[in-house]
Amino acid sequence: MTDTTAPVITPEQMLEQWQGHRRLSRKTIEAFPEDKLFTHTIGGMRPFAELAMEMINIAIPGIEGLVTGKWESFGNEEPPKTKKELLTLWDETTDHINKLWPLLAPERLQVVEKAFNVFDGPNYWTLWYFIDNEVHHRGQGYVYLRSLGIEPPPFWER
Amino acid sequence: MTDTTAPVITPEQMLEQWQGHRRLSRKTIEAFPEDKLFTHTIGGMRPFAELAMEMINIAIPGIEGLVTGKWESFGNEEPPKTKKELLTLWDETTDHINKLWPLLAPERLQVVEKAFNVFDGPNYWTLWYFIDNEVHHRGQGYVYLRSLGIEPPPFWER
Repeated sequence: MTDTTAPVITPEQMLEQWQGHRRLSRKTIEAFPEDKLFTHTIGGMRPFAELAMEMINIAIPGIEGLVTGKWESFGNEEPPKTKKELLTLWDETTDHINKLWPLLAPERLQVVEKAFNVFDGPNYWTLWYFIDNEVHHRGQGYVYLRSLGIEPPPFWER
Repeated sequence: MTDTTAPVITPEQMLEQWQGHRRLSRKTIEAFPEDKLFTHTIGGMRPFAELAMEMINIAIPGIEGLVTGKWESFGNEEPPKTKKELLTLWDETTDHINKLWPLLAPERLQVVEKAFNVFDGPNYWTLWYFIDNEVHHRGQGYVYLRSLGIEPPPFWER
């Protein structure tokens, strides 16, 4: 038996995990034809532009909450009207995360807070939730793309 | 600026992240009608039984490789013929992971190895890859369920 309570993963590695997935999500946005990004759905689900906007609406107040401990609600911004504007917003979010991340005190990741004033949990779990939610919805985007006969970006390339 | 290279996440928390997602994947298998689990597809993709079998085929040699440093290839077992047998195999995999996990030396998570003799990377990243691949494919299962008019299990409940 070994000590399974000795910390091994660094904040830097957590950031790269997040941003690596965000790079793949960006490629997934790019893979959609302009119109299908905003209109194509299956089973009554939201078009991928709305799923991508949810990722942004979580990431922006999410990084703020992680760093400061002041949690706002989820963003409720609507997606912009074009793929180009959505990608611009995506890139601004990337920069925003990278700018704030070095201000995140590592010990804050083990602090328990009510993220977005809704979810009680340690902040590392909340951050994983952001990532998992993105992977989950991006996987759904892959089905949308396949149903349109479009090859999605390779999952293992970040 | 703070030290972003000080480790903060423990192996125990990594295990719970993995098993928490595995619990949700199990509920997703359960949500499928017996026949649709093995037959329903969208856009030429694999039925959810095959996606779930991929998760098992990664998890079994995956936990062995993480613990021992001896990496076999991915499993290539076909899914069993019934939902009940698939769930049994799922539960056996859960127990197998829980049994081996305490033998994983925490420092092994930062060791760089060629996982499954294919992917070069630190072992923590490889473990995240198992989890991410599962979240990705389970998200696809959610689209299958929605396209069948079935409400998937709540994403935030693990």
